[in-house]
This record gives sequence, structure tokens and C-alpha cells, in this order.
Amino acid sequence: MLQSKLFTKTSKQLPKDEPSLNAQLLLRAGYVDKLMAGVYSYLPLGLRVLNKIKNIIREEMDKIDGQEILMPALTPKEIWLQTGRWEGFDALFKLVGKEEREYALGATHEEVVTPLVQRFVTSYKDLPCAVYQIQDKFRNEARAKSGLMRGREFSMKDLYSFHKDEADLDEYYEKAKKAYFAVFARCGLDTLLVEASGGVFSKFSHEYQVLTKSGEDEVFVCYKCERHQNKELVEGKEELKCPYCGSKREIKTAIEVGNIFKLKTRFTDSFGFDYTDEKGEKKRVQMGCYGIGPSRVMGAIAEIHHDENGIIWPKGLAPFDIHLLLVGNDDSAARQAEEWYARLSAHGFDVLFDDRTDVTAGAKFADADLIGIPYRVVISPKTRAQDSAEVKMRSEKEARLVPFKELLEVFK
Amino acid sequence: MLQSKLFTKTSKQLPKDEPSLNAQLLLRAGYVDKLMAGVYSYLPLGLRVLNKIKNIIREEMDKIDGQEILMPALTPKEIWLQTGRWEGFDALFKLVGKEEREYALGATHEEVVTPLVQRFVTSYKDLPCAVYQIQDKFRNEARAKSGLMRGREFSMKDLYSFHKDEADLDEYYEKAKKAYFAVFARCGLDTLLVEASGGVFSKFSHEYQVLTKSGEDEVFVCYKCERHQNKELVEGKEELKCPYCGSKREIKTAIEVGNIFKLKTRFTDSFGFDYTDEKGEKKRVQMGCYGIGPSRVMGAIAEIHHDENGIIWPKGLAPFDIHLLLVGNDDSAARQAEEWYARLSAHGFDVLFDDRTDVTAGAKFADADLIGIPYRVVISPKTRAQDSAEVKMRSEKEARLVPFKELLEVFK
Repeated sequence: MLQSKLFTKTSKQLPKDEPSLNAQLLLRAGYVDKLMAGVYSYLPLGLRVLNKIKNIIREEMDKIDGQEILMPALTPKEIWLQTGRWEGFDALFKLVGKEEREYALGATHEEVVTPLVQRFVTSYKDLPCAVYQIQDKFRNEARAKSGLMRGREFSMKDLYSFHKDEADLDEYYEKAKKAYFAVFARCGLDTLLVEASGGVFSKFSHEYQVLTKSGEDEVFVCYKCERHQNKELVEGKEELKCPYCGSKREIKTAIEVGNIFKLKTRFTDSFGFDYTDEKGEKKRVQMGCYGIGPSRVMGAIAEIHHDENGIIWPKGLAPFDIHLLLVGNDDSAARQAEEWYARLSAHGFDVLFDDRTDVTAGAKFADADLIGIPYRVVISPKTRAQDSAEVKMRSEKEARLVPFKELLEVFK
Repeated sequence: MLQSKLFTKTSKQLPKDEPSLNAQLLLRAGYVDKLMAGVYSYLPLGLRVLNKIKNIIREEMDKIDGQEILMPALTPKEIWLQTGRWEGFDALFKLVGKEEREYALGATHEEVVTPLVQRFVTSYKDLPCAVYQIQDKFRNEARAKSGLMRGREFSMKDLYSFHKDEADLDEYYEKAKKAYFAVFARCGLDTLLVEASGGVFSKFSHEYQVLTKSGEDEVFVCYKCERHQNKELVEGKEELKCPYCGSKREIKTAIEVGNIFKLKTRFTDSFGFDYTDEKGEKKRVQMGCYGIGPSRVMGAIAEIHHDENGIIWPKGLAPFDIHLLLVGNDDSAARQAEEWYARLSAHGFDVLFDDRTDVTAGAKFADADLIGIPYRVVISPKTRAQDSAEVKMRSEKEARLVPFKELLEVFK
């Protein structure tokens, strides 16, 4: 893409009323625009990153036999009454339409997915079954101060699995655990699996937490037996002693990026979701749910992978593979940069080409740092004279001259 | 995909409380599930079709320099007050959150996109500029009886263009007109460009209408000069006489699948959106908007392309390219069908393989007709004995035997 055509611009100024670092970085670089607290628009650069995160999640969910569907955000009051969450779910956005119809905006989708799957799954032959969607969720938060990390509207991948018994649920839960680690590894996030409250039905749920100073959560980390616990789970004075191995634990701040939960029959009970087993008997279906917020992952990456000049996207998540900069007003260098823009694109690389003629070299370098694409390639009269381009990794300090004939090799 | 793994099933029964033909067909074949009137979930088959439609639209919008973004559905009251539509837009869903904050669900996005683009576009050098999104819209409809054609929640592609003057807006409007015809042609829809009300600022807007008996709209069609008009535009007794060429017109029912509109300064006035021209003077930005509903397009295709047995998807929109059916309990035929499933997939075709062993041949044929994939390929002990498969186009009556060695050629 030609940067001269990109309608967004970077900004040197810190955005007003935006305490969170991830949103500051993403706003300044033109990835997102803030409509109000906790609600953002994704601009061309930001949407590219968000879609890459969604596609990584999609690939990993498909590998564990998830079937993708898309459920609505507008849901009728009746299904929430049936599970007792019309009153019980504090952050539910409620609204009244014409003819006094009442609705809730989907804050989670157990109330929609359970009767939906129930209409098709009737026999043991139909189980196990896993469906997921990637869609915006809505939560009526009193405060939303953490940028993309805690939104009133935010994207969510929610997978739901259905099973004939607890043993089958347990088996799938372990598969999902691994798939989640794979997602976060591909997103450049080093996560810990942390025990959290399991509600009424399960002893624990599990959260995927990334340790970082700015995290909203507090986690007791046991480096000895590697069973970590969310602080909300822990009460009493022995909290710094690991309940499993007795070692001394450390308390750390962290960002939650995913959450998995054995729902068991919490929702299949509400809807009377039974299947017929091999002997012709009715049995209650067991259920699990598994969530990752793509926009929250995007915020977490910005929160963790940056320096004082801007974001440092991991490869595979950056909006483009290569940021090509034309520096200096020189027709020959311009032609060469255009040729390389075409050549790199033809080789399958996504290139952002800073072809702007009314911007100084310094401003181009500053923009490249702020936007944070993994490879910066500069073509100028000076590099051209040496039949080379200057290549710098965003994650490294030093640039190096690479002869044009070796340039393609750098990105392979 | 293996049909035995697909969690949805077809249904012979007409769905209850569903008067619209498109929803009846899509529900029975397992493309969508109905949550309530005007609100549907997209199941694996349906989501594939919806995504294909969205991608066709995306490609054509990119060709006319549209930059894709993604705006939120949750919007603050203030922006609607600024344009006078908080009270003026009848179908706006309104809700009240914590701390008495008031919101509207995006029914259209002029109120969001205008100030968003205004933050970046300040000079004549930044114009023209076009941005679009593909996202769910919400409308507080009293009645929703037309299946996917008029939803309370429905997918929408909305493009907004920004210009330095009316001449530039006019030029882009003509480009968008052509891009829209390209989208509909690729979706198998034969559309007429129809003049409709232009509101206060423009003489006309334009609608893309598909003639069909079940359409909600009425259109005066002039086959002579080909300037057609929506009935809502026409008043008085001369309505059957074309106001342009004087010929006799016909009145037809039709489905609206797209709509383009010169907004001029309707919204840039509300937000005081000016740019600085070549002489350093402030000028008001001109604006156009261009909408297509992907879910409505999907409904329109089902409404138009079907027979008494089910949907007949145009190529390129069907959830799969080929529906491969294994018929008869025979290990050799089963092995051969599995081989062809692998071979066709390896050649880049999307194949739905009906590998179910507990379903009769008749039920498999009925499902194939209902689902409506362009090519049906049957492998059975009988076809195998002739070293052939039986191929039938969904749009044709007769099947024919094709020797295996010629099979790949059929789909090219």
C-alpha cells in the first residue's frame, strides 16, 4: 500500500483522557480511533492486525474441530430469563424496542448457542460437537480505562463444546488448553495458565495470563510446581505459600487474554438439553466454553511489545511485513524504490511504501518506529550509490546496508 | 468437509412462523437458525456463503480505492444529537447504560465516520478519500417478516466518500455505480438502477432493485429509455407514463439490494468538516454514501435462485464447489469416494463429502438438492463398475456418467 494514499496519520501528541499505554500507542500510530471510553474504531492499519489475530485463532480452533458460526448480538429477553441471568448478569446491556419488546446485547452467548445446538444434536452419534464464533460482545461497564483491554464493545472468539459425559469434556478441555497456548505463542504472548474461580459447578476455571507491570489482575506465581492462581481465588494468610508444593510464591500483575471453563450442565439444565445414548436412554449434555478476545490480545501485544518510540509488532501480526521508505528527493532513487515496491509485492510480501514527498526523512523514520513494522527498508540517493538498501529490524538498534542482489534473502 | 461431521441437519418441515421464502429455504437447508423475527444465526454453510458475498464486495470496494475500517455498533447519544437524528431516526435502537449514559446502536454510521475522517483529512491534498466497513447494523423495526431481507440485526457494507467539491463527488458516484453493478453481477443478481428519493439535499438517490414477484418494493420500469423510478417517488395520475421519454411504463415488484446517495454537506455541515484548499481557504467537504447488505443479498439470491427442491447457488457463492455423495454400502466404492475427496480437495476445490453411512441414497439426493451446491458427484458400486462418477449440475435436470479420467476436467 502507498502511504501517501493511507487516510490516517500518526500523531506526536498523547491523546487526551487516555490513561492506558496500549491505547496511547495504537491511537498515536493511527491503528485505532476512540469513539468513547471503551469503544474504538479500527482504522486500516489496526483492522489488518485485528484480522491477523482473528485468523490465527480461527486456524487453531479449526484444528480442534471447531465449526465456525456467527450468532447475533441482539438477543431476546426470554432466553436470559430461562437461565436466570436477565437479573443475574450485572454487565448486561438491556434495551426496549417497539411494541415493548425487551432485548439484551450479547455479553456472552451460552443463552443463544445452547438451544441452537440442541435443535440439531439429539443422539450420542452427534457428540462431541464444538462450535465457535468471532464477533463483537457488549458489556455495560461502569468504567473503561484500559484501552483495548476492557471495552464496552470488544471482539471475542467464543467456542462452546458439547459432550456425552464429563470424561469426554475433560479430554476436550485438555485439547483446548493446548490450542490456546498455540494461539498465544503465535501472537508473541508468553502466557501462564492460572487457576481461577470455577463458579458453582467446577472447582476451577483457567485463565491465560501475561505477566506485565500494567496488568489489572494479580496472580500468585509458583515457579516450582507451575500451578499458578488468581488472587481472587486465594483467601487467608497462607497465600504466599503454594497449596500444591508448599514453595514460596510470588505475586505478580498480569493481563488476562483468555479463559476456559467447564460449564458442565449449568446451561444444558436450563434448556433441558438431553441426548439419547447407545441404550436409548436420555442423558444430559455436558458443556465447556472457551474465550479469547482478539481486540484484548491486540492491546496486550502493544502493552508488552514496544519501546519509547512505538510498537514492535511480532512477525505475522504486523499490518505489513515490510515498511519501505523512500528518503531524499531524487528521481533515480524514487524509481528504484518503486521497482522494489513492485518486486517485493510480487514476491508475496505485504509492503507499506512511504512514497510521501512532502515529509522529511526524520518524520518518516519516526513514523516507521511508531507504526512498528518488523522490517524497515530505506532507499535513498546514498544507499542507491552503493547499489544497496538500508535494512533495520524494528526490534534491533542498528541498521545495515544490504546489496540489492541480496535484499530478497533478508525476508525469507 | 465431511458431512458426517457437520453439526447441522436439513429439515423436511416448513419452519413455523416464517412466511418468507428465502428464510424457509435457508432454514430447511441448515444455512441459518432463527433466534427471533428478523434476527438469525449463520450456521457453518450459511457463514461460508455470507463470507463469499462479503469478499466479493470487499474486492470491488478496494478497486474504487475504498479503505476498509471497522467502526463500533455502540455509539454515544451526543453524536446523534449533533445531526438531529437522535429524535429524527425512527428505527434507532436506544439504550441506557451505567451512570445514566445513553447510547444508540449503529443503524447507519454517518455520525461516526464523519468526525472520524475529519480528524485526519484537513487539506485538499487528503481528498478524495473513501472508507468502508462490513459490520452488523441494528434497526428497531416494528415488524420483521421478510426473512433475511429486513432484519432487526443485519450485515451491511457501508462506504463513505469525501470530496473537495460536487464535481469530484459526481465523478466518484459514477465509479461507485459501476462497482455496484459488478458486485451484483458476481452475485448472480440482475439489477436495475432505480431513482428514489434524494431527501432534502439531492434530487435523487439510486437503488439497485432485482425484479421478483416476492419483492417488497414497487418500481416503475421504462424499457424504452431505461430510467426506472421507485413508486414512492411518483405521485399523480401520469405515473404509468415515463417522465423522461413519455413511453408507457410497467409497474413491477422488486427487492432492493443496494442504495447509493449523494449526501453532499448534510453531515459535514453538522460537524463543521472543512478542508483547506489550494489557496489556503476553508471549504466544506462534500460527501457520498453507498450501502449493500450482504445478508440481504444472500436472502435475495435464495429468493430468486431456487426450484421446488431447494436453493440453486450461483458458482462462486455456494458454500462448497462440489457435493460428493457416496451411495451404497460398498467398501471399494467408499475407498474410491475417499480418494476423490482427497484429490478434488488437493486440486483446490471446496468439497462437501456426504460420507454418512446411516442415511439412504434418497435422503442424500434430497439433501443435495436442498443445499444446492453447483456440482453433485455420485460414486456408487454401479458407477464404480463403469470406472466413472455420476455428475449432475444443480441447475440441470439430467445427470451423466463421467469416466474418472475425465472427471477433473468437468469442474475447470
